[in-house]
Amino acid sequence: MNYDVQTATAVLRRTPAVLDALLRDLPDDWTRPNEGGDSWSAYDIVGHLIHGERTNWIPRAAMIVESGETRAFERIDRLAQARESQGKTLARLLDEFADARADSLDRLRAFNLQPQDVERRGRHPVFGVVSLGQLLATWVAHDLTHLHQISRVMAHQYRDAVGPWQVYLGVLKCAGHSE
Amino acid sequence: MNYDVQTATAVLRRTPAVLDALLRDLPDDWTRPNEGGDSWSAYDIVGHLIHGERTNWIPRAAMIVESGETRAFERIDRLAQARESQGKTLARLLDEFADARADSLDRLRAFNLQPQDVERRGRHPVFGVVSLGQLLATWVAHDLTHLHQISRVMAHQYRDAVGPWQVYLGVLKCAGHSE
Repeated sequence: MNYDVQTATAVLRRTPAVLDALLRDLPDDWTRPNEGGDSWSAYDIVGHLIHGERTNWIPRAAMIVESGETRAFERIDRLAQARESQGKTLARLLDEFADARADSLDRLRAFNLQPQDVERRGRHPVFGVVSLGQLLATWVAHDLTHLHQISRVMAHQYRDAVGPWQVYLGVLKCAGHSE
Repeated sequence: MNYDVQTATAVLRRTPAVLDALLRDLPDDWTRPNEGGDSWSAYDIVGHLIHGERTNWIPRAAMIVESGETRAFERIDRLAQARESQGKTLARLLDEFADARADSLDRLRAFNLQPQDVERRGRHPVFGVVSLGQLLATWVAHDLTHLHQISRVMAHQYRDAVGPWQVYLGVLKCAGHSE
């Protein structure tokens, strides 16, 4: 499927409610443990999503709209949530994410993008020239990669509890970790 | 984490609302395509979850409670949804799943399980002896494996649209497919 603003936005505006339904008031046993080492918990992932709203998707789209490929995007700090989430409850992070996403979608609407605008070009610090459509499609897929990750991190907590059923459960065999 | 009824139920009772927030009224471009071949779409997966409520989790738990390991569980028909979902809208399937899950949780409560009951034994047609706790933990992980799958099937629809970002998106590298 090609990127188009309306189809993409249908997913983006649902994500806060999805995470709310999944995580709000869930026992900490599900939301605070990770997959070991310095991997992320569901709590960490919500913090990362908030950081993306503030520094990644709309700021980069704005840079394409305003400067095209003359300026490279800022790099993303993938560890920012450890600092920015400190001392906050998960309920508060879910509220912040919902507010930040609503604000992002308002700003997206204000760009008043026309179909041909998805071809506009920007400059990624690693990939070089990318299109606005690719950036905005990645915003959607990024929501989905982290929903996929949260499901996996939660399922991991029951890796032993399921006993022999482990072999049937794809989520326990997933090696699709984001970089 | 060991299985316990309360912690597990916290996930099980949220799943219908999670799927509702994610899928209801979403354009068919997201919910009807699959990952190619005879893989499943989001629509197919919701049908599969309904079938599990009716034939798998509570019926098997009831068999353990009533017959212990003397009778093997019925095998699960993993293709039942093709037949049972026929002609139904996704909105109707989401309603059916929510009703079926609420009914399952009522039946679970009616078992009035005590902590030691998770050690009760049943017989799986492939694995042999399994515990009630393993079965009930698998019910939770099964919700999560299918949420993980739906995220992946949806992200797959944007595999090309994201362009070079494909390499950063774990969901596009996941090979954790359920059997």
